[in-house]
Amino acid sequence: MTVFRMKLEERISLIEHVPSYRSDVEKRLSPIEFLEPSKPAVFLSIGGGELGDLAVTAAKRYFGGQGGGLKVVAFDRYEGFPAQDVADYSECFDMMNGDMLEKAIKKHVPDPSAPHSIYLEIEKINTYRAFKLGMEEKYKVMSTPYGPLICMDRHVTKLMFDELGLNRVEWEYASSDDEVRKIARDFNLPVIVKPVMTSSGHGTSIVRTREELDEAYHHAKEHARGIGDEVIVEKYLPELKTVGTEITQLVIRHFDENGKIINSFLPPVEHRRPAATYHESWLPSTISETAKRRCMESAGKIAGFIGGLGVYAVEQFVLGDTVFNNEVANRPHDTGMITRWMTNMDEGGLQVVSTLGFQVNPFYLELSRKNAYGVAHVVLAPKHIKGEIKVIRWNTREITSFISKSVKGDFWYFGKPTAYADRRMGLAAAFHEDIERARKDAEMIAHFAEKQICYGES
Amino acid sequence: MTVFRMKLEERISLIEHVPSYRSDVEKRLSPIEFLEPSKPAVFLSIGGGELGDLAVTAAKRYFGGQGGGLKVVAFDRYEGFPAQDVADYSECFDMMNGDMLEKAIKKHVPDPSAPHSIYLEIEKINTYRAFKLGMEEKYKVMSTPYGPLICMDRHVTKLMFDELGLNRVEWEYASSDDEVRKIARDFNLPVIVKPVMTSSGHGTSIVRTREELDEAYHHAKEHARGIGDEVIVEKYLPELKTVGTEITQLVIRHFDENGKIINSFLPPVEHRRPAATYHESWLPSTISETAKRRCMESAGKIAGFIGGLGVYAVEQFVLGDTVFNNEVANRPHDTGMITRWMTNMDEGGLQVVSTLGFQVNPFYLELSRKNAYGVAHVVLAPKHIKGEIKVIRWNTREITSFISKSVKGDFWYFGKPTAYADRRMGLAAAFHEDIERARKDAEMIAHFAEKQICYGES
Repeated sequence: MTVFRMKLEERISLIEHVPSYRSDVEKRLSPIEFLEPSKPAVFLSIGGGELGDLAVTAAKRYFGGQGGGLKVVAFDRYEGFPAQDVADYSECFDMMNGDMLEKAIKKHVPDPSAPHSIYLEIEKINTYRAFKLGMEEKYKVMSTPYGPLICMDRHVTKLMFDELGLNRVEWEYASSDDEVRKIARDFNLPVIVKPVMTSSGHGTSIVRTREELDEAYHHAKEHARGIGDEVIVEKYLPELKTVGTEITQLVIRHFDENGKIINSFLPPVEHRRPAATYHESWLPSTISETAKRRCMESAGKIAGFIGGLGVYAVEQFVLGDTVFNNEVANRPHDTGMITRWMTNMDEGGLQVVSTLGFQVNPFYLELSRKNAYGVAHVVLAPKHIKGEIKVIRWNTREITSFISKSVKGDFWYFGKPTAYADRRMGLAAAFHEDIERARKDAEMIAHFAEKQICYGES
Repeated sequence: MTVFRMKLEERISLIEHVPSYRSDVEKRLSPIEFLEPSKPAVFLSIGGGELGDLAVTAAKRYFGGQGGGLKVVAFDRYEGFPAQDVADYSECFDMMNGDMLEKAIKKHVPDPSAPHSIYLEIEKINTYRAFKLGMEEKYKVMSTPYGPLICMDRHVTKLMFDELGLNRVEWEYASSDDEVRKIARDFNLPVIVKPVMTSSGHGTSIVRTREELDEAYHHAKEHARGIGDEVIVEKYLPELKTVGTEITQLVIRHFDENGKIINSFLPPVEHRRPAATYHESWLPSTISETAKRRCMESAGKIAGFIGGLGVYAVEQFVLGDTVFNNEVANRPHDTGMITRWMTNMDEGGLQVVSTLGFQVNPFYLELSRKNAYGVAHVVLAPKHIKGEIKVIRWNTREITSFISKSVKGDFWYFGKPTAYADRRMGLAAAFHEDIERARKDAEMIAHFAEKQICYGES
């Protein structure tokens, strides 16, 4: 296992070191002035799923690709990954292997002082090696080389919230059945039990009865990315599912026209998840102006604390005007895929522009569609799939026909060649003045489309 | 010279043959049902400039590329063409060479009965060979194999207008100085003199004095694509530049849900050109509802007459409620590039969707931005360039900084590696509630950007 796992004192020490890390990293960053076809800048996406594809496609679409002076490279673990057939160069290997990762990065960016940006699209990467390459060899790992060490570790994330004095739900750290039970008693049930290190909600349970506690703890440990028994126990806010809502506040850290790094904000993305993973998200959000301001304030402090350049996604719970900060990704986020339809530049494009060192045109951050909600809903492979199987066929005509006759909607085929249980295969989108209607429409398209994918071995 | 040039009787005969050609071609077309990753459909763009790039990028963005069951191929005459680094496969050769063209098509589409679409993006193609491959070997040359023979020949185009009883400006066909002079006397000056075969306005002059007549005729002959002395002399409508306007009506021919081919319409694109080539265009147009209806009616008749599948662009002059049909392209059009910012799917995406045999989602044809005009303005290489020179550098930071601080605007870098005099290098876009302000803003960005490209030999 190559994952970097910290002890408690290392976690505290990391938070203490951030200001000096940030100063080191930001000192080395400078705005990019030119694009030169003979010496192209490199945008490297480590991970090339739908989020990587969004960025890679934007790099081509806006800057004209290699002829415009921008070379695009993408890595992933398997042949046929979504960004592969748009990127200029690609590599397939186990990105948890630090030596392979370092070798592949150095192959495509031989000189770390040349203009480039390294986007860690996913968390299944040897982030400690990426950290070392960024801090010691001055590779431009975005947003910062140490960002993933903070954001992937829920304990460190929460220490950061406290350091910044940000509102959050109550939580405790536990590493045994006894500790979990004690915290649950202190908080009163229900509580949420999560692994310290994981992403996309894997291993998370809401615990409503004492009988479920042990199972939740073992479930969290099973899904933990790190070695060991550590989990986070959070006080559950039951109002959240009734009167509350969830927000992802996207922040873009970028150079301004004076060469200073500043934060800009996209409108907050609202989302819902029946389970712990991404399910649907929409723009604009329905929260109050006060809550919006608070979402941005907190998210701005977090992005400013970690620093660097690029997109930050801060997950927040909102109850009325109160904002609870929950998790942070120092990169574009699943819930932000709705920007593909709703803002003047999507989060993938913004990641390219900001991490390469360009200014961000304020126009890009505005909603492109006015007077309508846009909702994105995941299209998943069936739960019952065993292992990994091939995609044989998309009944594309049925999908288009269904959308055309029933709703204002759209469809994004991710182009993944294989599926496993619950794998995200595409995204359905719907648009309506009424948010509940838009949510229903997007869900209807998604559920129809899920039946139009044929899987099999041949 | 491999261009197919017709005699008068062949032109008349071609128009007479269209109904049976159309019937032959449409009989062979059928809706596409599936996309299958193991046997991908092929979208082949012959010509891969900015219009080809728009289509190729859309193919990737919507359908997920090869993993989604869609293979994209692009041809052009030079290495580094805009669509090349997005396409899965590319070829560089002289597309006027029929044998090379046929060989390259057959390399990427070995079986003409397999799902594919061949998009003739430009006119500098051996269109006669494409015609033969389409009519005799059943390749799916879109919109139809014989479309370019009608649309590239202004004489045939005008015969078609007459066949369909469509309003047009008065015109005559001439093949000597004497004939040109006689027609000019009959029409009264000013007149417009154009080669019979060319595209993008090359070789066209507005003649205001008798002294300019001979020069205009020789200018037209020089730029003529065909062999010979034939030109078209048109009555010039001086009100056009004062109270009139120019429209490109985009029509999409596509399968409906019952498997019937129908016409759908984008909102008419309005445009202006100080000279004969594309300069600026916008959406929505400012013409009357009656004029809009007439633009669509005429364009629908033309697309229905030529038939097949795909985007048609009909150039029209509009004076009050009166519509004069002018020229036709049986493919996406320069002026339509504004759809990249203004409609739910751009004309490149619509070409992919419709020519592959999918239904067109009516949502795609709607304006995405409401309450604002969007104007696109060309960014040209300097007039004084001799021959072809390299693009050394784009001062990208200056362009972004200029747009960010002054207007609501955007920029599309085409990524062409070289330039010649007046070559189109990019497109500036601006958005404003006031159309004249939006036009000024787009022009301002374009003219600023033109100074931010460094050219040279090294």
